[in-house]
Amino acid sequence: MRILISGFGTVGQGFADVLLKRSDLFRERYGREVSIVCVMDSTTYIADQTGLRLGDLLERKKVTGKVGNDKYSDSTEVIDSVDYDLMVEVSPTDIKTGGVGLKNIRHALGSGKDVITVNKGPLALNFCELVALAKKNGCKFRFEGSVGGAMPIINLCRENLVGERISSIRGILNGTCNFILSKMDNGQPFEQALKEAQQMGYAETDPTNDVEGYDSACKVVILANSIFGRNVRFSDVNITGITSISSEAISLAASQNMVIRLIGEVSEDRLEVSPRLISKGHPLSIGGTLNAAQIVTDLAGPITVSGRGAGRIETASAILSDLVSIMDDRKERGGKCQKK
Amino acid sequence: MRILISGFGTVGQGFADVLLKRSDLFRERYGREVSIVCVMDSTTYIADQTGLRLGDLLERKKVTGKVGNDKYSDSTEVIDSVDYDLMVEVSPTDIKTGGVGLKNIRHALGSGKDVITVNKGPLALNFCELVALAKKNGCKFRFEGSVGGAMPIINLCRENLVGERISSIRGILNGTCNFILSKMDNGQPFEQALKEAQQMGYAETDPTNDVEGYDSACKVVILANSIFGRNVRFSDVNITGITSISSEAISLAASQNMVIRLIGEVSEDRLEVSPRLISKGHPLSIGGTLNAAQIVTDLAGPITVSGRGAGRIETASAILSDLVSIMDDRKERGGKCQKK
Repeated sequence: MRILISGFGTVGQGFADVLLKRSDLFRERYGREVSIVCVMDSTTYIADQTGLRLGDLLERKKVTGKVGNDKYSDSTEVIDSVDYDLMVEVSPTDIKTGGVGLKNIRHALGSGKDVITVNKGPLALNFCELVALAKKNGCKFRFEGSVGGAMPIINLCRENLVGERISSIRGILNGTCNFILSKMDNGQPFEQALKEAQQMGYAETDPTNDVEGYDSACKVVILANSIFGRNVRFSDVNITGITSISSEAISLAASQNMVIRLIGEVSEDRLEVSPRLISKGHPLSIGGTLNAAQIVTDLAGPITVSGRGAGRIETASAILSDLVSIMDDRKERGGKCQKK
Repeated sequence: MRILISGFGTVGQGFADVLLKRSDLFRERYGREVSIVCVMDSTTYIADQTGLRLGDLLERKKVTGKVGNDKYSDSTEVIDSVDYDLMVEVSPTDIKTGGVGLKNIRHALGSGKDVITVNKGPLALNFCELVALAKKNGCKFRFEGSVGGAMPIINLCRENLVGERISSIRGILNGTCNFILSKMDNGQPFEQALKEAQQMGYAETDPTNDVEGYDSACKVVILANSIFGRNVRFSDVNITGITSISSEAISLAASQNMVIRLIGEVSEDRLEVSPRLISKGHPLSIGGTLNAAQIVTDLAGPITVSGRGAGRIETASAILSDLVSIMDDRKERGGKCQKK
């Protein structure tokens, strides 16, 4: 399995770290390690068909800010110059145009290569086109980490729960908003809670994308298209953020033994992000930066998952789970066949 | 896929119901329905190599209390008289000897047949023997529904999280105890909460198995052996139940913004069921009859799942997920290949 990594920021470097940590997994399960044959960041690239040394790349990126010595102008020219089997696309999310991520994913799938991404832009804007392209070319296209980071949700619904009819998914899909709302539960006003989130590194200087619900809306779109087979886009979501939630509303909720949480909801006919009242003790009443999602099924009833929605290693772990799943599907299995 | 159902009580009948509801799933995914060739209850059986009509069996069991007209004395003689591929073993749990369930599972695996069970007796008493027997004979042996009912946990750990190192699992593994503790959170004393649980049908007349923590301990053993590769038995678990939890302890916990929950914990060196203090807002602070489990991993961090821990259709849905997984592994796939 020869891998091309497109994007070497937080998640790309986290994925390199995870591969270094898990070399034993690949040796035991498949009889060999995976080989990284090319890594691109926003302006440079480095390629070696015999396999790059990830430790060296991480060190160089840390010291120089760049992964390679060679600059490129057109990413697809770099991609075409490499023999690879699978692209890990983790360039920055561009929710307006899909950005270079969309371009690179299209190019890889169009060339018959498997793709794993956590890039919400291409998924929220061009999901159905990309899935159709993957199908047409016999490629695997996976994106577990795009919703809820390390929280297992997409593969859980599509594999473990394949016998269920899923009527809706409701979830806390943005850890920053949940951190702010949890702080407000403890009496802090919104502005102060936001400031603390920024100081902790959970919220960006411009927090619009999180607090206005746009990030949650992207995830709602990905769930709608991937789990419910819908064909919707970001602009189809009814979005209300958390900026107008007052301390009085939080107190009133608490007096009824409830909390307010920003909930993304998707079903056959619903596509919404809005603050909702949740009873204390309900699986979606959790506090802190966690993400959580409740999957409502006809046989199993409601199933809830929660986990860390962000973080370099956490998000990379979702990419790892997609990679193992694809390698199993591709019957790369050999070695000691450790699968229990 | 020809199936033999051993046990036609609540779960066995629930599984028959689920198969009736999901005939379309099998037609679409595999190009045909599964065939039930034999059903046994505690004293009678019915067999037909051309496939039994499940609706008729459910009706007859309801009306006469028996699934078949023919009585048997030795279950293995019935089993040997049938051509089948997979046994669904759902006879009543016997936690002292393993009972007829252990006998039937041994017999099926020994004959090279796949087995799905939710029977905690054989799993808590003879896990390693049964897994070794399955391996020796090339059989699939699955038991998702034995821990947490419809809550996905075993297959989640062994498939979706195969790239993770799991250091511990802590969970609410008995919905009856959680119902009682949730009622105590609202001010009811233990005896009154237990009585309500009995009236609601959540607790049995003799509630020992639940409230003393024995049921949770069985599940801890199954998780230890199946996820951590340990070789432990029921008698190895340190068990404290919930009978000595006072209203004062609940109030004291509440004053610290905590709740008391009966937690089963398993790791490389721990095997315990005991009441623990859990912060409100923590994923394991949930109320009601739900089960929940927190899986602590090195890359993804803590992942929590929750769902209904019991119920005829809910438990049967876990058997269905095991069945689909086995049929996929056995490459029974055909038909329209609807897997997304």
